[in-house]
Amino acid sequence: MTTYDPTSDLAALDALELKLFARRYAMGDINFNGETIDPAKGAPARGEALAILSEEAHELLCAPEVGEVLERLAAHAELLDDTHAHQVRVLTRDREQSISVPAREEADYTRLVSEAGDVWHRAKLANDWASFEPYVDRIVETMRRFAGYKDPARDPYDVWLDEFEIGTSRAFYDRFFDQVKECVIPLVADVCAKGWQPSLDSFRGHFDAAKQWELARDIVELEGLDMDALVIGKTEHPFTDSLVSSHAFIASHVHEDDVISNVYSMLHEGGHALYEQGVNPAYDYTSLKGGVSMGIHESQSRFFENYVGRSEAFAAPLLALMQRRFPEQLGHVDPHEFYLAVNRAEPSLIRTEADELTYALHIVIRYEIEQLLFSGEAKACDVPRLWAERYKGYLGVEVPDDRRGALQDTHWGGGMFGYFPTYALGSAYGAQYRDKMVEEGVDFDGLCAAGDLAPIRAWLAERIWQFGRAKDPNDLILGACGEPFDASHFTRYLTDKFTTIYGL
Amino acid sequence: MTTYDPTSDLAALDALELKLFARRYAMGDINFNGETIDPAKGAPARGEALAILSEEAHELLCAPEVGEVLERLAAHAELLDDTHAHQVRVLTRDREQSISVPAREEADYTRLVSEAGDVWHRAKLANDWASFEPYVDRIVETMRRFAGYKDPARDPYDVWLDEFEIGTSRAFYDRFFDQVKECVIPLVADVCAKGWQPSLDSFRGHFDAAKQWELARDIVELEGLDMDALVIGKTEHPFTDSLVSSHAFIASHVHEDDVISNVYSMLHEGGHALYEQGVNPAYDYTSLKGGVSMGIHESQSRFFENYVGRSEAFAAPLLALMQRRFPEQLGHVDPHEFYLAVNRAEPSLIRTEADELTYALHIVIRYEIEQLLFSGEAKACDVPRLWAERYKGYLGVEVPDDRRGALQDTHWGGGMFGYFPTYALGSAYGAQYRDKMVEEGVDFDGLCAAGDLAPIRAWLAERIWQFGRAKDPNDLILGACGEPFDASHFTRYLTDKFTTIYGL
Repeated sequence: MTTYDPTSDLAALDALELKLFARRYAMGDINFNGETIDPAKGAPARGEALAILSEEAHELLCAPEVGEVLERLAAHAELLDDTHAHQVRVLTRDREQSISVPAREEADYTRLVSEAGDVWHRAKLANDWASFEPYVDRIVETMRRFAGYKDPARDPYDVWLDEFEIGTSRAFYDRFFDQVKECVIPLVADVCAKGWQPSLDSFRGHFDAAKQWELARDIVELEGLDMDALVIGKTEHPFTDSLVSSHAFIASHVHEDDVISNVYSMLHEGGHALYEQGVNPAYDYTSLKGGVSMGIHESQSRFFENYVGRSEAFAAPLLALMQRRFPEQLGHVDPHEFYLAVNRAEPSLIRTEADELTYALHIVIRYEIEQLLFSGEAKACDVPRLWAERYKGYLGVEVPDDRRGALQDTHWGGGMFGYFPTYALGSAYGAQYRDKMVEEGVDFDGLCAAGDLAPIRAWLAERIWQFGRAKDPNDLILGACGEPFDASHFTRYLTDKFTTIYGL
Repeated sequence: MTTYDPTSDLAALDALELKLFARRYAMGDINFNGETIDPAKGAPARGEALAILSEEAHELLCAPEVGEVLERLAAHAELLDDTHAHQVRVLTRDREQSISVPAREEADYTRLVSEAGDVWHRAKLANDWASFEPYVDRIVETMRRFAGYKDPARDPYDVWLDEFEIGTSRAFYDRFFDQVKECVIPLVADVCAKGWQPSLDSFRGHFDAAKQWELARDIVELEGLDMDALVIGKTEHPFTDSLVSSHAFIASHVHEDDVISNVYSMLHEGGHALYEQGVNPAYDYTSLKGGVSMGIHESQSRFFENYVGRSEAFAAPLLALMQRRFPEQLGHVDPHEFYLAVNRAEPSLIRTEADELTYALHIVIRYEIEQLLFSGEAKACDVPRLWAERYKGYLGVEVPDDRRGALQDTHWGGGMFGYFPTYALGSAYGAQYRDKMVEEGVDFDGLCAAGDLAPIRAWLAERIWQFGRAKDPNDLILGACGEPFDASHFTRYLTDKFTTIYGL
């Protein structure tokens, strides 16, 4: 019997990883520039460059000899160091997901969503659902077909839920959202019945953009980002990306009439960037770099935005930063007033502006409509009606137009059906981390009050960040919290917090 | 006899061009970000990504089957449209230049200059020639060896002169610099003997950086750039690049104590960007995109910086822009005073700050020292002495230290021996364009005075810009001016201009 020597297969794997890294790096810079600085007329060439690089990445990964290398290495996992073993597992999964869809159909789909994104943008501005409608049907139809390629035995929507958050399905999310609804719906009703709301008066006024950008840096510095490994850019829709652990991007925006929006956008994006900076640097040039899933990524961003950023304890250090940049406008505000203002819970129309309590209901509505589209029970033409019915039913608000209704989010035009639930799930993961930290003796509120987040970051870095894509979400949660995901941490948190704030 | 059908070879050529385009695009964005926004800790990963992408470009171009495709197409040039014929010629030359150097030696050299660039940077700050010295010797030695691979029959320095400016050699530059010296040296002596200099007093003061960036945009807009196809970034050393004709970058800097520096940097970089925006858009995804040579590129930047920007006629519209942004500091200045101030001719130590008259002497000094290094008559340890002797001889100035001497420029650390002469040559090309325009009836001064550069741009676009890399420098000059390059246009221009200003 010949003994297998993995040396040459490992060399092939390392060479492949470097080529994939170079494409991720290039596409990361190209996308960041596209969203932040590129001139209007630069879009077609950017699209062409991205299409070529992503097609090359697809070809590299799907090459038959790569399949053979991965198979041989997987069959001799005992000969591999941990990092290579994880790479083999993750690359094999990435490859299976890429290879199942015929290259030409993938390319057609890329063109479809690129066009749909443009159409959506114009449709939203013009409040014109009809122009976007055919794209929704075509995208859903294509995603259903692709789901069939990926796993013909499975429900197509389940396939996509699982793609955005490994290990999830309708059954999983149904249970989760039932728990959430059971908690949130009566709470929202009680808040509305109470008839009192915290005042926002102290936060009205004009906040100079240049000063707000300085504040943006202050905030991520307080949050604990390595500023020598971070770029901050300006864009319309905030986002975070990262090339290696020592190079993260945040792109954000400021509104001169709303300083709070900037503060919480930066806390949110800073959470994403902390995760990316915290991945084991040994994974930098491999497929293990980056966040493992959207849900885990959102669990970091929403952790810093909400569990830290909207806590009563953190109100003092956060407000102090704001007061330093805007002494005239905010000098008279006290931390408790700030805490109440940023936790004002109120049914509303726009998901991205929703408070922590009602947020999950915005997600439930999208989750339900996506299911109807994927099951064929509804077509795109039904969406505005379904949207209005559900906003009325869950939140008690009238949808005045599609711009503030089904056209508000960019996701569907980009083919991101199955993505929305990860936002709610990410929020819920965070409550469980927080409870676990406190159980283990982390003085969460004391640290927030002192503006010293280092021990909180250390906990997350050790349990979540360092692993990058090397651990799947379920394993991460189990490893971090000593138990599987449990939504009751989240519902308890919401109940305690909003019962107290509103004196219910 | 079988008839050759070029269809499949042309398809292979087009596919290669797209892959090369994607790499140029990616490396363009990566480099721009590296010079403008990347975080300090991002450098190693950026270097790795660039190394991988450039190695891939080298492999793509040097693949044996590409050589065969190019040979077959070149042998049937009569079957090709003009664009493909140019592509075959330019790609064949690019390929020959790439393939002659063994890949490993090329990679070692890339590492050497990358390290040397770093060492130079620190050496300049520390005024420490000794630490940089061994790199100069190693780079010269490597470049001599590479020249031998490229053309063993030719003098090594000639090989590199020709690489940076096709068609040049020591014989060519010796003639050119003799003409320049014959004109400039007595002029400089007369200016010095005159004992009078224009005053700079009106331009001292504090010029707010944010306002200077607004002025920077005003300037390139007046120059005529398509602002929807331009990005302006911030960097230490100004430069211009371009991805396609509809996407150019300018990176520049401002100094709050010196508004003139910003104005002329932007005019200079704007000239480069006009050239890039003016290349035939049909060349966008091919090797024909971009400027044909450094000399021709500098001829555009220095045309707008000097022939337009430092003309007496353009002083009024240019000063008006400056006054709009800085009414308090500059409101009292008149155009003639401004014209004199920006044409103050004075022997000095620093090339990049030199005036239009003495500039060429700074280049002559570098050209002479480079020849001594390449011929073996001098080693790096001799450079500070040679530098001091020549600055004393040509410009009459004492070199107080290497920081303001042989360490001032970045070029040698980057292996750009043979590059400096293109700066002087580019300046000289411009005088010939200007004379030709005027001869053909372009009202150069009238247009400058009116701030209407469109007819001047149209002339340059038609004769120079549109061709990209499809015409070599000699052919461009001949086509544009109806005669070969002739340095007497340049020497006449300098003589007339500075005789008048200084009343010689």
